[in-house]
Amino acid sequence: MAGKVDVSRLPRTVALERGADGAPELVLLDQRLLPAEERTVRLRDWRAAVDAIRALAVRGAPAIGVAGAAAVALAAWERAAGPEPADAAAFLAGLEADGAAIAQARPTAVNLPWAVGRALGEARRLAAAGEPPRVVAEALADLAVELAAADEAANRALGAHGAALLPCDATILTHCNAGSLATAFYGTALGVVYAAAERGGVARVFADETRPVGQGARLTAWELARAGVPVTLICDDMAASLLASGAVDAVVVGADRVAANGDAANKIGTLGVAVLADRYGVPFYVAAPTSTVDLAVPDGAAIPIEERDPAEVLPAPIPGVDVWNPAFDVTPAGLITAIITERGAFAPADIARACA
Amino acid sequence: MAGKVDVSRLPRTVALERGADGAPELVLLDQRLLPAEERTVRLRDWRAAVDAIRALAVRGAPAIGVAGAAAVALAAWERAAGPEPADAAAFLAGLEADGAAIAQARPTAVNLPWAVGRALGEARRLAAAGEPPRVVAEALADLAVELAAADEAANRALGAHGAALLPCDATILTHCNAGSLATAFYGTALGVVYAAAERGGVARVFADETRPVGQGARLTAWELARAGVPVTLICDDMAASLLASGAVDAVVVGADRVAANGDAANKIGTLGVAVLADRYGVPFYVAAPTSTVDLAVPDGAAIPIEERDPAEVLPAPIPGVDVWNPAFDVTPAGLITAIITERGAFAPADIARACA
Repeated sequence: MAGKVDVSRLPRTVALERGADGAPELVLLDQRLLPAEERTVRLRDWRAAVDAIRALAVRGAPAIGVAGAAAVALAAWERAAGPEPADAAAFLAGLEADGAAIAQARPTAVNLPWAVGRALGEARRLAAAGEPPRVVAEALADLAVELAAADEAANRALGAHGAALLPCDATILTHCNAGSLATAFYGTALGVVYAAAERGGVARVFADETRPVGQGARLTAWELARAGVPVTLICDDMAASLLASGAVDAVVVGADRVAANGDAANKIGTLGVAVLADRYGVPFYVAAPTSTVDLAVPDGAAIPIEERDPAEVLPAPIPGVDVWNPAFDVTPAGLITAIITERGAFAPADIARACA
Repeated sequence: MAGKVDVSRLPRTVALERGADGAPELVLLDQRLLPAEERTVRLRDWRAAVDAIRALAVRGAPAIGVAGAAAVALAAWERAAGPEPADAAAFLAGLEADGAAIAQARPTAVNLPWAVGRALGEARRLAAAGEPPRVVAEALADLAVELAAADEAANRALGAHGAALLPCDATILTHCNAGSLATAFYGTALGVVYAAAERGGVARVFADETRPVGQGARLTAWELARAGVPVTLICDDMAASLLASGAVDAVVVGADRVAANGDAANKIGTLGVAVLADRYGVPFYVAAPTSTVDLAVPDGAAIPIEERDPAEVLPAPIPGVDVWNPAFDVTPAGLITAIITERGAFAPADIARACA
């Protein structure tokens, strides 16, 4: 392996920071521009945060969770601000409505409603305790910072658990970007890679380009190269040849929502890689923090699958040609070797017990 | 199904025609420009024909076979022309060298060396019979025309054999373009679709976009829409969800070379679709004329796999990111339900006997 792996070379994906006037700002690396340009945007309007989530300026289940909590903090700040002190009941009712809109920005990843729910729960608790809107807004800004820190800590822990499952100098295949760019920092699937690199070395990561949005080509390949991990980009339809060749020691992917039975929704194409890994006897790991596990959903069939704009697939329409563009698929628990969380790695059938 | 399916709306892919002065010309639809532009080019120089094959201006195993035979005819005409009558022995030796270069333009499809071999065999036979170079050159031009006609006839025959395997109003998934654009006319995998549409109807064809070159997105989707077949374009990584849904009655693909044991090389990504079809119990058919069967190759491991320019995958290189770009993969015979040829449909294990 050429050079040393160093995750500190990676930029921060999403954070809540304070402006000069003390107002909270959602600070995002605009991932639509990578790898050509690293541009950071600072948002004060929660509506702009929703737009950024929808347009994939920030994406990745844990990252949009943090962005969602931060958006609630922006909304609270807006409602608490002004010359007149806001009415506490109206403040909370309005914030609940804002939060509902934020939680619905995208449907599949559970981290978004999970993080928004955490923020709204904190707001309710403080309001019930008689705290004024301004204090609630301050607390929600602090909570978004805490959730980002907790996400990074969870990723570092799950990375270590995952690395213990890999041979030294492993060759790994991943799909989409479940990297530092998909989280507050460090990554889930790529957190396992970084932890393995720091521990015993990683020979190489193969990254599926992940059409139609190209998170593998634009984000995973760029991120791994930046951190110093040897990386080879392939098209999604090359994964079969690669896995059949015997060159891959393990597949590691992220997840947007894990059902109670261990079925896992992740970026479209993950199911195909899982079927191939099963056929060719390659372990298939899902790396996700427990905040991605949704015990309210019994199995994968109940996970809502977002369908996106056909123009992502076919920018210049061809007359008479239809397009189908589902953004996620569901990998059944039976194809998953283990689900790697910050609490350890579990057989899919044990994930509900582990998260209870 | 909206409207009637009519293949006569499709353009000719490749043909040998005569110029005003009687000289043979290779007439190609430049497939690199589709679907934005339908541009036909006329080539008199066999070296330009080799460039066109390498650059994918003409592609598809049967189509590059016809183009290869035509290129040999162009080379023969060039060598036979001139004020001095060409020396017969030097003419043949030179033509053999030209033919070897033409046959090597691309390595995987056997139709190219097969058709060039047919042309050189005819040249040898005529030269041995004492025919002068000009007569040989005329005969090779006629042969290229005959091979194109024979290819279309074979495709219409295999289309009928394949259509008999499908239910009425079938929903079909295909990968890459094994359509009229990949042959002299009518197509192999899409020949089966056209024959089925003329016979009992086709509900819909799902076309994998087929990265990195996009033959599915640019060629198959365009061709099917032009012919009046309902078509939905998907990204390659969506095929798993589609097949798992149960919506597909059959997968039909082409082939670039079929080994004696029934293993089939085809466009990269075909293997992945075959593994998925096997998992979800969907029949997987390979449609190819017997000119695609190479009895000299015992199994798929002996088929040379072309690797192409990384820029096809990643036009703007990312520092530190490697690319792997194999253009074909091999589907083992065990994953193929039947191989559909102009002589009928055969179990892969029977293909050698059927072609002997």
